[in-house]
Amino acid sequence: MRLPSVSVALGGERFSVAYSLTAQNQAEARQRAAEIAFEQTVEFPADLTPAGDILDQIVGQVEEIQALSPTSWKVVISYAIEAAGDETTQFMNLIFGNTSIQRGVRVESFDLTPAMASKQGPRFGRSGLRELLNAPSRPLLCTALKPMGYGAGELARLAGDFARGGIDLVKDDHGLANQSFSTFKERVKACAAAVNEANAVTGYASIYMPNVSAPADQILERALLAKELGAGGLLVCPGLVGWDAMRILADDNRLALPIMSHPALIGSFTAAPDGGISHYALYGLMPRLFGADASIFPSWGGRFSFSKEECAAIVAGTEAALGGFKSIFPTPGGGMTMERIPEMQAVYGRDVIFLMGGGLHRRSPDIAANSAYFRDLVETIK
Amino acid sequence: MRLPSVSVALGGERFSVAYSLTAQNQAEARQRAAEIAFEQTVEFPADLTPAGDILDQIVGQVEEIQALSPTSWKVVISYAIEAAGDETTQFMNLIFGNTSIQRGVRVESFDLTPAMASKQGPRFGRSGLRELLNAPSRPLLCTALKPMGYGAGELARLAGDFARGGIDLVKDDHGLANQSFSTFKERVKACAAAVNEANAVTGYASIYMPNVSAPADQILERALLAKELGAGGLLVCPGLVGWDAMRILADDNRLALPIMSHPALIGSFTAAPDGGISHYALYGLMPRLFGADASIFPSWGGRFSFSKEECAAIVAGTEAALGGFKSIFPTPGGGMTMERIPEMQAVYGRDVIFLMGGGLHRRSPDIAANSAYFRDLVETIK
Repeated sequence: MRLPSVSVALGGERFSVAYSLTAQNQAEARQRAAEIAFEQTVEFPADLTPAGDILDQIVGQVEEIQALSPTSWKVVISYAIEAAGDETTQFMNLIFGNTSIQRGVRVESFDLTPAMASKQGPRFGRSGLRELLNAPSRPLLCTALKPMGYGAGELARLAGDFARGGIDLVKDDHGLANQSFSTFKERVKACAAAVNEANAVTGYASIYMPNVSAPADQILERALLAKELGAGGLLVCPGLVGWDAMRILADDNRLALPIMSHPALIGSFTAAPDGGISHYALYGLMPRLFGADASIFPSWGGRFSFSKEECAAIVAGTEAALGGFKSIFPTPGGGMTMERIPEMQAVYGRDVIFLMGGGLHRRSPDIAANSAYFRDLVETIK
Repeated sequence: MRLPSVSVALGGERFSVAYSLTAQNQAEARQRAAEIAFEQTVEFPADLTPAGDILDQIVGQVEEIQALSPTSWKVVISYAIEAAGDETTQFMNLIFGNTSIQRGVRVESFDLTPAMASKQGPRFGRSGLRELLNAPSRPLLCTALKPMGYGAGELARLAGDFARGGIDLVKDDHGLANQSFSTFKERVKACAAAVNEANAVTGYASIYMPNVSAPADQILERALLAKELGAGGLLVCPGLVGWDAMRILADDNRLALPIMSHPALIGSFTAAPDGGISHYALYGLMPRLFGADASIFPSWGGRFSFSKEECAAIVAGTEAALGGFKSIFPTPGGGMTMERIPEMQAVYGRDVIFLMGGGLHRRSPDIAANSAYFRDLVETIK
């Protein structure tokens, strides 16, 4: 027997999520779509769900079912914005909370309604970061401070060399946290100083971006300390700290620093070809939703296995319409070399941050010269 | 050319992670294991990594390689505890950060060294929760307040009925956040009062566990408010708020409330059979590492696709040796019915929390009577 009906005050505004799912025929696809619509909202048997507003509007509505192949279907489900309660955490829960546990269903994309798009999103975006770095049109350059085990002195020496060579964004490796051999404070103080001193000599506007991925009660504290010590941006691993912890940093006016999102621990979301979250949404839309200005991912042809098409989909996600949110920089890395720059630039174009780690050390022992070579390579390609 | 060597102060204590990986032969397995050991630590080309302490101790050490099948291998890699920097976020990053993006490698298990096990972990665990609920040996009962769309009044009426019938743990559905139709404060106030009033009549010790999964800057605030309003525990979705946000709640002496972990959004970690994180580690070890006293997962035979063996592995993870951390309650749900209780109890035994949602409404319109029937069923099974 159905639970008693109630009247729910709803404005009628709905956002949509596109899923791909496996099904042997249209009837099964329709059935699976309906199950998702219930699972993601009332999580209640259809025949017991209160009739009226809850059944008609709170339960997700299947808006579209379309065959992609004989066994693969695109379904679009809309949800009342009130179900998300103006919270990004609950928004993600509505999109994929329990359904993440189902097999054969993947989040392909989602949209935001005008009311939802009033959030800030990326503070800088592509245009803001270009302005900050005084680089109106060329690809931007990024590298990582490593290896783990180096102390603040060694890392700062590297940071200075990178900046003198013209690397725009000198970030911590995501494995640098607050370790005895390189405490957060010592490292940030030394590296920020090294980059800022290099800028004073070169006239460049390079910034140092320390990794503030930390225990939940220390993230904001470290970010504020980083700003105080002269850091020009922040590196955040949403898979380690939670996506919304990144948004908090993006929204904080005391910080007002560009943010780079790192994929540590979120790789599993694309591990099953017919499950998880698409490259487009995971590395393109979600970092924007949670305030990042650049999204790191492993490019095709490096140590990881993303295809060229998956990388192109990520680029599309960084610039697709998403409420009024700014476009952000795709930041391919994961095994780049100098030799691959022309090939990569042909695909990524100019609105890209090239992230080169180990590859920047290979050309010669002179790190500043290697960095200058990297910059020259990128600047001279048409 | 190698980067310059440095001396790193390390105590020699190392923790281990067991991975399964796909490889066509032992040489390939060995190669893949070595790549993981570098990727997870220095993230640097082997031939450029500084010799000495960094290469010898900071880089992961491959401790074991064992064939599981002709194309599947178990590898154990150890890491210096100093690389984790005493932070659970960096600990998870060391275990699987970048490697989560690789195909064909899964985290099977991990251990903690004595130094790492000094953390609190679950505050209550199985024994503490049994004591709190005055239930020395029987299986515990749990249900969820739903459906989304109901206001505080309707939800509180259900909460009171559940508690009068003897449900030990009355939790929010994980889709209840802070929505206009049921704000967090109104809901928690009404539902906590309903459960506490029922206890005064029945003599039971049921508790209400609201969902405190919220934007990063509101989680602790909501948990403290929940305690103030009479809630007896907390529901947390680490996939939505970040794992460490749950630990913060577990460690907070102002709260001192039992915590139930909900799997929203983490399902994708087991979507690929040869990727992600094992059921044993994801639903067994990790909730304990991050302070949960009970871990919800979908049981075999319900709406989700976990096998009986995967559920048994989760149970093993909730009670395996893990530093000195307490055992916690496996909490199977996801489509339970009254009819399946005997079959499930035969597998789960008595150290289990049975989570029944919609199934508790089906027997009759009298929710308190249905709840009492559920409790009676569980109490009378030998």
